[in-house]
Amino acid sequence: MFGGVEAGGTKFRCAVGTGPDDLRAEVRIDTRSPAATLGEVVRFFAANGAGVSAIGVGCFGPIDLNQASKTYGYVTSTPKVGWSQVNVAGALQEDLGVPIGIDTDVAAAALGEGRWGAAQGLSDFIYVTVGTGIGGAIVAGGRLVHGLMHPEIGHMRIPRAAGDAFSGACPFHGDCLEGLVSGAALRQRWGIDPATRPPEHPAWEQVAHELAAGLVNLILTTSPRRIILGGGVMEQAQLLAQVRERVFDLLGGYLGAPGFLADGIEDFLVSPGLGWRSGVLGALLLGERAYQDAGRA
Amino acid sequence: MFGGVEAGGTKFRCAVGTGPDDLRAEVRIDTRSPAATLGEVVRFFAANGAGVSAIGVGCFGPIDLNQASKTYGYVTSTPKVGWSQVNVAGALQEDLGVPIGIDTDVAAAALGEGRWGAAQGLSDFIYVTVGTGIGGAIVAGGRLVHGLMHPEIGHMRIPRAAGDAFSGACPFHGDCLEGLVSGAALRQRWGIDPATRPPEHPAWEQVAHELAAGLVNLILTTSPRRIILGGGVMEQAQLLAQVRERVFDLLGGYLGAPGFLADGIEDFLVSPGLGWRSGVLGALLLGERAYQDAGRA
Repeated sequence: MFGGVEAGGTKFRCAVGTGPDDLRAEVRIDTRSPAATLGEVVRFFAANGAGVSAIGVGCFGPIDLNQASKTYGYVTSTPKVGWSQVNVAGALQEDLGVPIGIDTDVAAAALGEGRWGAAQGLSDFIYVTVGTGIGGAIVAGGRLVHGLMHPEIGHMRIPRAAGDAFSGACPFHGDCLEGLVSGAALRQRWGIDPATRPPEHPAWEQVAHELAAGLVNLILTTSPRRIILGGGVMEQAQLLAQVRERVFDLLGGYLGAPGFLADGIEDFLVSPGLGWRSGVLGALLLGERAYQDAGRA
Repeated sequence: MFGGVEAGGTKFRCAVGTGPDDLRAEVRIDTRSPAATLGEVVRFFAANGAGVSAIGVGCFGPIDLNQASKTYGYVTSTPKVGWSQVNVAGALQEDLGVPIGIDTDVAAAALGEGRWGAAQGLSDFIYVTVGTGIGGAIVAGGRLVHGLMHPEIGHMRIPRAAGDAFSGACPFHGDCLEGLVSGAALRQRWGIDPATRPPEHPAWEQVAHELAAGLVNLILTTSPRRIILGGGVMEQAQLLAQVRERVFDLLGGYLGAPGFLADGIEDFLVSPGLGWRSGVLGALLLGERAYQDAGRA
C-alpha cells in the first residue's frame, strides 16, 4: 500500500491505497505556507498511513529532479510566494520515515492515466494540463522523459494571430503558449473568468487554434500515440472538439501514419480517464517506484 | 563488423567497419532511381561486405518504423520522385541476406554522435540537422524516441517576425520552421544560394532567431542535456554563435537549471563531433542493433 500526494499551487490532495478502486483515505488541503501545508500532509499520513510502504509526490514545479543534486526534491524558483527553494521531498521524508518519490504533478498524472486511465497499454503518450498554468509530461518507450530538468511544454512559442495585440501573461516570456491560453492568461486577456464566456463565443476558436499549434509542435516533436488534455480550461465542454479540428487542419495532411488516420483524431486527443484524480492516483505510482528503488539500493 | 548506409535525398554513403578509426571501405553514391541507387548499394556490399554481420540504414523520411506494419522499412509518402512506397530495408535484406536495421537518417546521426561524437556519455540529447530540409532525433534515457512514427521537428510552427511577408517554402505547411530556414527555403526566400550571402548580412540574424525559436520549443519540451546542430546551413561559420545568443535570450532566464548555466550555452548547443560522418557511422550502430535484435528473436 502506498501514499500519494498531489502538491498543487492552490490545493494538495493526499491519498492512501493501491488504486482507484481501493483508496482507504483521502484529503484535500488548501495550499498555504510550506510549513502549514506540509505539516497538514504529515498529520494526514500519521493518522491514516499505517501500512504505507512509500509515498509519492506529484509536485508543482519547477522542481529539481537531479538525484545527484544537493537540492534534489526541492521546488526551485517559483513565483509562488514562500515556496522557492523548499525541500518538499526532504520535509516529508524526515517526518514520515518512509521512502519518498517525487516528480512533477503532470508526471504523476501521466503515470496514473497510463496505469488506469486513458493511456492504458500505450508506451508513447503525452499528458497536458491547461489550467492556471500549462504543463505536460511525456512518456516515451514506457518511461517518463526527463533530461536536464523536466519537460515544461507550457512555455513553447507559437505563431500569433494576425492583428492580435495581447502581449501575453507569462512573466518570463510574455506570449508563450502559457502566456496566451492558460486560465490565468485568459482571465487577463478577456478581463473575465474564462468559465463565464459562453461556449459559442468566437474567442474560443482562437484559444483552440493557439492550443492546437502547441499540440502540433508536440506531435511533430515526440510523435506520441495519444495526447490526454486535462486541466480546468478544458472543462469548457466544446473546446476539446474545437482543438481536435484545428490540430487536424494544422497538420496539413502531413501525418499520414496509418494509426493516426485509422483510429481518428477522436481517439488521439482525449480527456483524462481519471478526471481530476489522475494526479493523486499517479502519485501512488510514484510511491511504488520509490519503494522499488529503495529495495534495489 | 557491420555495414552502414546513410540514405540521403541527394547522396547515399556506405561503409563497412566497426567505428571511425576502423572503416575498411567507404563509397558515396548519387541518389537516382530506387533501383539504380539500391543496386549500387548491393554491389558495394557484395564486393566489400565479407564478414559483415548486419547492415544498418539511416534513411531520409518519412519512413514506416512500425515493426508490426506491412510497410515496415518503407519510405512512405515523399515528394522525392520515384521514392514513395519504396521498400528500402526489404530490398537490401533480400539481396544481401543479413539482418537490416533501419531508422531515420537523423536517428543514425544521433546514435553516431552519442557513441563517438559530441554527445558521448549523455543519455538525453537531440540531434538536429538544418540542411535541404530540417530533421531531428531525440535520445531520452539513452534510447531513441519513437512513437506513432518518428520525431519530425522540422515542421513545428514558430512565431513570425513582424512585417515578414515570406509565405514559406513547405508544401505541407508553408511557414513552418523547415518552410522558413531550411537550405531550400532560404534559397527561395532570398533568391540566391544561402552560401553566397555574406556572414555579416543582417538576414542571418533573422535565421538565427527563427532557428532559436524552434530549438527553445525543443528544449522546453524534452529538456535535453545537449543539442547537436548539423547540416549544410550550419556550415555558415558565424551562425551557431548567433543561434546560441538567441536561444539564451528566448529562454528569458527561465531555464535556471544548474547544469545549463554552469556549463554554459557553448557546451549546450554544439556542432557534430563527427562532422558529415555522423550519419554513416551511426548507421553502423543501427546494424549492430539489428544484429542484437536478430540474436534475441
